[in-house]
Amino acid sequence: MKNYIKADEWSIIEEGFDAHHHQISESIFSLGNGRMGQRANFEEAYSGQSLLGNYIAGVYYPDKTRVGWWKNGYPEYFAKVLNAANWTTIDVSLEGEQLDLAKCAVSSFTRQLNMKEGYLKRNFRARTEGGREVEVEAIRFCSMADDETAAIKYTITPLNFSGTITLAPAIDGDVVNKDSNYDEKFWDEVSKASRPDGGYVVMRTKKTGFEVATGMKFSIVQNGKAVQPPAEAVVKEKYIASLIKLQVQQGQSVSIVKYVANLSSQNHPVQKLTENLELTLARVSAKGFDTMLAEQAAAWAKKWERNDIIIEGDVSAQQAIRFNIFQLNQTYTGEDDRLNIGPKGFTGEKYGGSTYWDTEAYCVPFYLATAHPKVTRNLLLYRYKQLGKAIENAALLGFKNGAALYPMVTMDGTECHNEWEITFEEIHRNGAIAYAIFNYVRYTADETYLADYGLEVLIAIARFWSQRVNWSANKGKYVMLGVTGPNEYENNINNNWYTNTLAAWCMGYAMEVAEKVKALAPEKYEALIAKINFDEGTETAKFKDIIEKMHYPYDDDLQVFLQQDGYLDKEQILVKDLPAADRPLNQKWSWDRILRSCYIKQADVLQGIYFFEDRFDTETIRRNFDFYEPRTVHESSLSPCVHAILAARLGDEARAYEFYLRTARLDLDDYNNDTEDGCHITSMAGTWMSVIEGFAGMRVRDGKLSFQPFIPEKWASFSFHIGFRGALLHIKVSKHGVQISNISDKPADVVVYGKGQVVGPNSELTINKD
Amino acid sequence: MKNYIKADEWSIIEEGFDAHHHQISESIFSLGNGRMGQRANFEEAYSGQSLLGNYIAGVYYPDKTRVGWWKNGYPEYFAKVLNAANWTTIDVSLEGEQLDLAKCAVSSFTRQLNMKEGYLKRNFRARTEGGREVEVEAIRFCSMADDETAAIKYTITPLNFSGTITLAPAIDGDVVNKDSNYDEKFWDEVSKASRPDGGYVVMRTKKTGFEVATGMKFSIVQNGKAVQPPAEAVVKEKYIASLIKLQVQQGQSVSIVKYVANLSSQNHPVQKLTENLELTLARVSAKGFDTMLAEQAAAWAKKWERNDIIIEGDVSAQQAIRFNIFQLNQTYTGEDDRLNIGPKGFTGEKYGGSTYWDTEAYCVPFYLATAHPKVTRNLLLYRYKQLGKAIENAALLGFKNGAALYPMVTMDGTECHNEWEITFEEIHRNGAIAYAIFNYVRYTADETYLADYGLEVLIAIARFWSQRVNWSANKGKYVMLGVTGPNEYENNINNNWYTNTLAAWCMGYAMEVAEKVKALAPEKYEALIAKINFDEGTETAKFKDIIEKMHYPYDDDLQVFLQQDGYLDKEQILVKDLPAADRPLNQKWSWDRILRSCYIKQADVLQGIYFFEDRFDTETIRRNFDFYEPRTVHESSLSPCVHAILAARLGDEARAYEFYLRTARLDLDDYNNDTEDGCHITSMAGTWMSVIEGFAGMRVRDGKLSFQPFIPEKWASFSFHIGFRGALLHIKVSKHGVQISNISDKPADVVVYGKGQVVGPNSELTINKD
Repeated sequence: MKNYIKADEWSIIEEGFDAHHHQISESIFSLGNGRMGQRANFEEAYSGQSLLGNYIAGVYYPDKTRVGWWKNGYPEYFAKVLNAANWTTIDVSLEGEQLDLAKCAVSSFTRQLNMKEGYLKRNFRARTEGGREVEVEAIRFCSMADDETAAIKYTITPLNFSGTITLAPAIDGDVVNKDSNYDEKFWDEVSKASRPDGGYVVMRTKKTGFEVATGMKFSIVQNGKAVQPPAEAVVKEKYIASLIKLQVQQGQSVSIVKYVANLSSQNHPVQKLTENLELTLARVSAKGFDTMLAEQAAAWAKKWERNDIIIEGDVSAQQAIRFNIFQLNQTYTGEDDRLNIGPKGFTGEKYGGSTYWDTEAYCVPFYLATAHPKVTRNLLLYRYKQLGKAIENAALLGFKNGAALYPMVTMDGTECHNEWEITFEEIHRNGAIAYAIFNYVRYTADETYLADYGLEVLIAIARFWSQRVNWSANKGKYVMLGVTGPNEYENNINNNWYTNTLAAWCMGYAMEVAEKVKALAPEKYEALIAKINFDEGTETAKFKDIIEKMHYPYDDDLQVFLQQDGYLDKEQILVKDLPAADRPLNQKWSWDRILRSCYIKQADVLQGIYFFEDRFDTETIRRNFDFYEPRTVHESSLSPCVHAILAARLGDEARAYEFYLRTARLDLDDYNNDTEDGCHITSMAGTWMSVIEGFAGMRVRDGKLSFQPFIPEKWASFSFHIGFRGALLHIKVSKHGVQISNISDKPADVVVYGKGQVVGPNSELTINKD
Repeated sequence: MKNYIKADEWSIIEEGFDAHHHQISESIFSLGNGRMGQRANFEEAYSGQSLLGNYIAGVYYPDKTRVGWWKNGYPEYFAKVLNAANWTTIDVSLEGEQLDLAKCAVSSFTRQLNMKEGYLKRNFRARTEGGREVEVEAIRFCSMADDETAAIKYTITPLNFSGTITLAPAIDGDVVNKDSNYDEKFWDEVSKASRPDGGYVVMRTKKTGFEVATGMKFSIVQNGKAVQPPAEAVVKEKYIASLIKLQVQQGQSVSIVKYVANLSSQNHPVQKLTENLELTLARVSAKGFDTMLAEQAAAWAKKWERNDIIIEGDVSAQQAIRFNIFQLNQTYTGEDDRLNIGPKGFTGEKYGGSTYWDTEAYCVPFYLATAHPKVTRNLLLYRYKQLGKAIENAALLGFKNGAALYPMVTMDGTECHNEWEITFEEIHRNGAIAYAIFNYVRYTADETYLADYGLEVLIAIARFWSQRVNWSANKGKYVMLGVTGPNEYENNINNNWYTNTLAAWCMGYAMEVAEKVKALAPEKYEALIAKINFDEGTETAKFKDIIEKMHYPYDDDLQVFLQQDGYLDKEQILVKDLPAADRPLNQKWSWDRILRSCYIKQADVLQGIYFFEDRFDTETIRRNFDFYEPRTVHESSLSPCVHAILAARLGDEARAYEFYLRTARLDLDDYNNDTEDGCHITSMAGTWMSVIEGFAGMRVRDGKLSFQPFIPEKWASFSFHIGFRGALLHIKVSKHGVQISNISDKPADVVVYGKGQVVGPNSELTINKD
């Protein structure tokens, strides 16, 4: 755990330069606009440890998987989010001496991520080995208003000398992926051009053939005046730059504004890429840096209007929650149903940047409440459009008749991961995808989605489950063998309670939706069942039989659901009784030892209880919580949020807050010693859930929003906006109670502390806590 | 399945050239002498499909493992048997046209592996694209009498032209491994020399630093006279050759004898390598080809004297059993306790050529009965010498106090395999290593081995098991979670009956041996327990407690041992009811589907019954056999032999023969479509077991050899030699009964059909059946 980030309500601030923190900061100070993003690499050269990262949403490479012996059904490739052309570089040479903070005495250094307005700012004063002292200010952002563009303003002032400063803004396509399985480079050069005022590089990915044109245009200001100093074009393999020589007087500043555009063949015809790139660069450079920055601030203001959570009385918590919300908005904007939310967003390469079940289980609640319904709908459509591939994926594993197994990890719908025990066995993701449909419709009441898209996915998923179980003559029950639950610290287990529960629910929900669609849109229903050969009678009879006779492991003595058939055969030593030196287990114990231990990586039975909370009485929830939580090591960042919500549900406010703290500043304080790889983007939605579903106790029941709020002791108040079926509510929870303002023209039915209320349009409801 | 090998009692014969069979034949016609070996690659150039293979025993490379995400305890490397310098090459050029069978019209072609005398002979007549017709005879062998040497005699006759024939004998160190994980080359050049009459290349392995000097010296005979034609030395990277230009008349033959030596730094000081190489080459070239060949025949005659199994009335079976015995003898001679028996011997790269539990479970019985006891003792010492590494290996996984986990795959004692589910979970190999000690002592009565080496290994293994189980409060038993049994078509299972049985037996046997050593060699015992900190009281109390309270899954209704806790929850469809198109499963089904099916790759419960046969009455054996065999797909070559032996034990002679057939000609007929990768060397010992322990029903009980023979219907008789505690018996089984001749000076106690008999020195016993 680190503690070098300065507390501030609206900014992330690092003061003083420490090379040991640099890669962590490169992650934390990352920028993104949903279309592209980048780590906070320095503009000028840096010879110290650094993870270079520039990413274009949806551009990936199918890297050959790294497995021991390939067996039937193994994924052939592991999709990689690609480190793309580096456009941040502005090399600086002071009278021939390269500016490189790794080789300088840095007397002051501040890095600031301004979350309110969406830019990164860096100021430093440094003295080179040659004794040249300069002051630098660099501001940059990825434009939210114009999402194929970005800009950097880099200002340098020589403090103790006059002379030649050479600036070399560049586009460098010759980049590598740190996690390439076989140390290959993934990009080929297509074309490039270098001119005195800019240039571009067009690169094409191997295998997938995505083309990305990355261009720059720049302007120079010296002594407050635009100048056009002599510039020399530099062209190397996959690389262009301009060498701009400036005569600068001691104490006088010179600024370069580097306008950048990144255009992908996903959004432009290949033959128009460079033409459109030039138009884009012309447009933004004509607009100018200050206008772009103002647009950026306005775009973010609009986001914050709906998204912000204001916490009074705790600056650290305020900073943390805003950081989480900021990163989620940087990662995914919901405009494009071909995109999704990688676990590291645009902040690193790890986990391939692909889509996991994190999206459906953790991110959907955030986007449902804070964004237009179309955002979640696009996330659902992403899966709908990949249904064909999910059916192919299941067929590869021997499933038939349109059964679909969605991939554990994907870019384009194809399963792609290095490990069989994940791809073959962690099939519960299929259930989360069905659950997200349920969650969307429960929240939005948009039943047309079911008729148009949802039912087709639900039947395909139900078919999978009905084939995946088998009848155990021994148990006289349907069983599900060889699975991995959300707790990846066990695998190849039998009858994971969570998976069995979810599977049966999926089959039931598919039938329920089929009835609903049949009633609402009979012609669509008929068309669908003809298209997918749904033999309603036989298939639903099978679903019903399985639902009725599914085996759910349960212990009569403990009265808890068993995570899996063999769980109680494991040695039961609680986490609190483990030597501190043994943790985190994933760094200290061998994999086999972890697998046969009782320790749980992340909520598993409790994840199921969270999903289906209303099925269980408080005592059942408590028994299971009290049994499993002490065995849970929370070594997944997705674990504490579910525990926070359930602790709140059980009235254990102190523990709810404790679990919240474990995710809120996970990256800011580098809790798990892994922030240098990138930020835990999807778990940030879990932090939001801890506050909204935990502290505020928000639920959707019977088409109404319900709240059961409490406030952490340390906080004076917290407030947030929730959009729900056309109404927009502002909820403020304080020590005294809850204030709900309806700032829309639609009345809202709410339930607060169990009591139904109506908040009229543009009116307010105050409920004092006893 | 193929059927192109001609039946012959003493030879393997291929007639006619079919490029599709070439890689299979390269495996089948492989040569070896325990110290080096090679695939049957052609001497002259061949541009068709071929797997080049030259191997030096014990020389390996630790190739970086190929795993998705490396986790704690994963092996860091996968040891590879190395494809070493190619010394068979004799390039032939006919008036400038390269001789290459892939480009010729081949009018006759015979390849013969003479197993009686141990050489490979190839004759062919071919016409080049340029119309030149030649006849060639090539004879080569790896010398058994002088195991660092080999020789090739290559004779060529121009049939329709006179002119220049250029021969280019070469040593080529620039070779690759087909199964390199990252397409690396594993050898660096150290030095080389090329002279008119020969030359050498010295190569060094990367990382491991083995140096191997491979040299050649040649002589030419034309018109029956030694000649010294002009030769031009060729030197390239890692390669040397001589270009020998010969003027040859139509119909006249020219022969080159290429003497080869392979010296490894394992057996020679590095600085003496080339000097010793030259001496070796001088020695064998002085000896001459014919003398070397005669020595080879004599060495093989000596082997066959003890090893041969003679089958009358079935040429195909005769050929097959000799092929198996021949390959086993080519692979391992028992001279060197640093060497072991790779699953492919010197016939291919697959499985890394390393040591598996195959050695202890399948090969030890063969060497015990057919070779001097020191051979098996050397196999045991190989493991004894690696005990330290086995303790380190266990410590990596969290085991303590000198617990040893022998590797699943190894070269030097370090675990090295790509797959965690094998290395972490398939721990039963630890038991097989203990069982081999038991088997050796049971057979030889060499109890000094126990005091000197055996007990130390047994205690380390017992310690491992005592830590590997855990107490299940739920079952009130000790359980063993997360293992893989011999049946690799399940993994990460709980309470594998075989593993639990073997583990408990190991602990019991360790205690029994401790008592024995204490009595026989008390001072050695004291020294040992001091050395290894054996806390006898506490540790044996723990062993006893576990033995007493071990959980053995059993089904009361079926009255069979259960392969694992969850086995009966699997869908029980018998192999005979599977569609033929679904088999072999490992080629047709996805890995997850195999894992959750009831299908068994190789004997698992039955392997345990085979090991501990005397514990079970016939009805118990029959019930388990009848339950498991119909669920077994025998997709491991190690499966049928155990079934053959148990079928024989149950009196089912027809099925015993049927199982025998499945291994006997496995490679000769390319049953599994994989012989091109190499031969199944270790399973060849299983074929021997099928005959000796199956058909002849040989056992060791109470220090005596016992026989319960029957003869397969198709056979007239079969006979073989067995060495046992100083006596040498010749056993002949015919339709009429058994004839046992004691051809040693030591009387032998034997039990035949349950009746004790003494066969006096140099006398005979005949027992007529009924």
